Amino acid sequence: RINGERLSWRLAELATKGAIEGGGVARLALSDADRQGRDLVVSWMKELGLAVTIDGVGNVVGVRAGREDGPLVMAGSHIDTVATGGRYDGNLGVMAGLEVIATLNEAGIVTRRPLAVAFFTNEEGSRFQPDMLGSLVYVGDLPLTQALATPAIDGARLGDELTRIGYAGPAPVGKPGVHSYVELHVEQGPVLEAEGFTIGAVEGVQGISWTEFTISGQSNHAGTTPMRLRHDAGYAAAEIATFARRLAREIGGNQVATVGALTLSPNLVNVVADRALMTVDLRNTDEARLQEAEKRLFAFADEIAASEGVEITRRTLARFEPVAFSAPLVARVEAIAREFDLPVKRLPSGAGHDAQMLARVCPACMIFVPSVKGISHNVKEYTAPDDLTAGADVLLRLLLEMAE
Amino acid sequence: RINGERLSWRLAELATKGAIEGGGVARLALSDADRQGRDLVVSWMKELGLAVTIDGVGNVVGVRAGREDGPLVMAGSHIDTVATGGRYDGNLGVMAGLEVIATLNEAGIVTRRPLAVAFFTNEEGSRFQPDMLGSLVYVGDLPLTQALATPAIDGARLGDELTRIGYAGPAPVGKPGVHSYVELHVEQGPVLEAEGFTIGAVEGVQGISWTEFTISGQSNHAGTTPMRLRHDAGYAAAEIATFARRLAREIGGNQVATVGALTLSPNLVNVVADRALMTVDLRNTDEARLQEAEKRLFAFADEIAASEGVEITRRTLARFEPVAFSAPLVARVEAIAREFDLPVKRLPSGAGHDAQMLARVCPACMIFVPSVKGISHNVKEYTAPDDLTAGADVLLRLLLEMAE
Ligand SMILES: NC(=O)NCCC(=O)O
Ligand SMILES: NC(=O)NCCC(=O)O
Repeated sequence: RINGERLSWRLAELATKGAIEGGGVARLALSDADRQGRDLVVSWMKELGLAVTIDGVGNVVGVRAGREDGPLVMAGSHIDTVATGGRYDGNLGVMAGLEVIATLNEAGIVTRRPLAVAFFTNEEGSRFQPDMLGSLVYVGDLPLTQALATPAIDGARLGDELTRIGYAGPAPVGKPGVHSYVELHVEQGPVLEAEGFTIGAVEGVQGISWTEFTISGQSNHAGTTPMRLRHDAGYAAAEIATFARRLAREIGGNQVATVGALTLSPNLVNVVADRALMTVDLRNTDEARLQEAEKRLFAFADEIAASEGVEITRRTLARFEPVAFSAPLVARVEAIAREFDLPVKRLPSGAGHDAQMLARVCPACMIFVPSVKGISHNVKEYTAPDDLTAGADVLLRLLLEMAE
Repeated sequence: RINGERLSWRLAELATKGAIEGGGVARLALSDADRQGRDLVVSWMKELGLAVTIDGVGNVVGVRAGREDGPLVMAGSHIDTVATGGRYDGNLGVMAGLEVIATLNEAGIVTRRPLAVAFFTNEEGSRFQPDMLGSLVYVGDLPLTQALATPAIDGARLGDELTRIGYAGPAPVGKPGVHSYVELHVEQGPVLEAEGFTIGAVEGVQGISWTEFTISGQSNHAGTTPMRLRHDAGYAAAEIATFARRLAREIGGNQVATVGALTLSPNLVNVVADRALMTVDLRNTDEARLQEAEKRLFAFADEIAASEGVEITRRTLARFEPVAFSAPLVARVEAIAREFDLPVKRLPSGAGHDAQMLARVCPACMIFVPSVKGISHNVKEYTAPDDLTAGADVLLRLLLEMAE
């Protein structure tokens, strides 16, 4: 069994890097705060005796040798956060991985296969798109050169930022050599807590579609321009944002739709906006429904462009189909939880995760623990210490099985 | 008659201060560019022999002595612009005033009453609210201390910015001693050009209502948070923005409604926004209809706050009732235009103007010249040189009448 206090202590220490009011964390990918967080985690990896490698996109892998050589049995997640982040999202999977290593070190256990703890660059996708960018490069599905050229929302370039914070490493990408992968994560949604479960055996991840719309209208005077003569980029953006809400209702099922980012220009009280930049995040566990939602969204944007006389162009920021995790591993998560007398439920993940990229190259799965009130991407994100411990115990047990 | 080429030359010279792509100007009030524009205009005033005074809020008045002492016959406007401004809005009234002075100097004419050319601080209201702030202080209806404490949209304070650019002057405010006031301005709307008129005899200014809404919701995960559990500040803002458009249609008449500024936070693709800051600009020539529009807007915001579970607070940024200009002066504008064989039309102003503040303390009026396609607050703002000249000729003639 792992040491829950030490796990909570590491989570709290890591949360001091990029700490913000309310107990939360702002550690956007490749920011100064991210560098501080990375430095701390790498120092812990070394203290625990792991051999640390850093690849060309800044993914960090710490390896503990096994009795035999060969592909790695990996626990991983990410330590970047959104700008209003909590201390659990991503961080838990990495800290629990370190806790597993510390526990095995103390017990003097050496596994057959080598074990690894990894954290991947820019999982959140807040500063650079797409999300899960680091793990996508890791598995070889996004070329390194393209990843390094990715622009940040603040105008920087991923490659420059990586070099600036000292995490452009020499390890190659695209040939992971991973035997199997498991990621412990907070649910970030309300289901486990509401229904009284401690462990989620995650069956897969819903499909993700991120679109950026750029709307070009004509700036004009708010007092003198008759309504019918307007080409108002801000109004067109607002229509798309309210349509997204209707769309989620009409598509039904578990469809969600979010306009998280919307920027007007010149953004002045008495000037009709000539430009709007906005994002729409659509998700569904069903690929056909997700495609239907995209189709209707794009058609609506075209209609608004015509009726308001604005130009609307769109760009895909991220598009991932729904992913199913390894059925045998999902079953093992469920069985181990039962063995430990932990109430367990199978469920899909609403959020994207590095595990969905690793699932492209090896058997992969996830373990969820409850998020109080389902709050995430918010400084109030919280998971009770007992649940953290329970999740880490399941992780330890599963890693031991995978590594033998 | 005035010298149209010299007038156009001054407009072009002034447009080099804060010049932006497309031939426009960004000279937000009390910015560095505003300082450069002010310095240039003050140097011209001095070259023309005007006695220049600067008051506590940065209004600049250049006086040409008359045969008698006494209250000033004033031509004025503003030289601040919006961030996507043209070179005519405001600037024309000031440059035409200087051109009148130059013409009188050349002709050796001394008027009975002293003549003055003035430009007022922060007429646009883009950087500091309310609009027409300088002239409001000038006529004594906004205390100087309150004006100096006004926050800018960029966080600065008006008093600090005024000192920084060196335009906090010693002249007192609130006792204008103005005999009468006339402001030449581009229409900024489409009416004169569309109907084939060269001169607008402006009967008054429509009522202006600016409200800032602050919406507080709960940041949360865009992928995991079911739609029914959201408290999305961005969605509430978008609903208000689309309602504003419906409201303009439903109130009818010449009601306009504009959401020019809208800022989300944290403004990230996969985070439900916890905060939105937005402005709504409502205008109507009819005060009762304007009040009706306000009432319905505020009621709608309350409804959305309740249904989305967000908190919405509001703050009035500007509120001015419709203003009627001096009937005898409006009649003189019309008569002079006819005398000059210039097609003239009476019309209200859709934009706010310093003249509406001066109208509180003396007979005041405005002369409009056509704006091509009605475009303003846009780099493409344009008025043909002949129309500029025609307007300045009417201004010269009216000032001579007022000063005798
Ligand atoms: N786990 C998590 O919050 N991932 C960020 C990517 C997403 O928006 O789903
Ligand atoms: N003339 C002008 O554009 N004034 C700015 C204030 C307003 O928004 O009407």
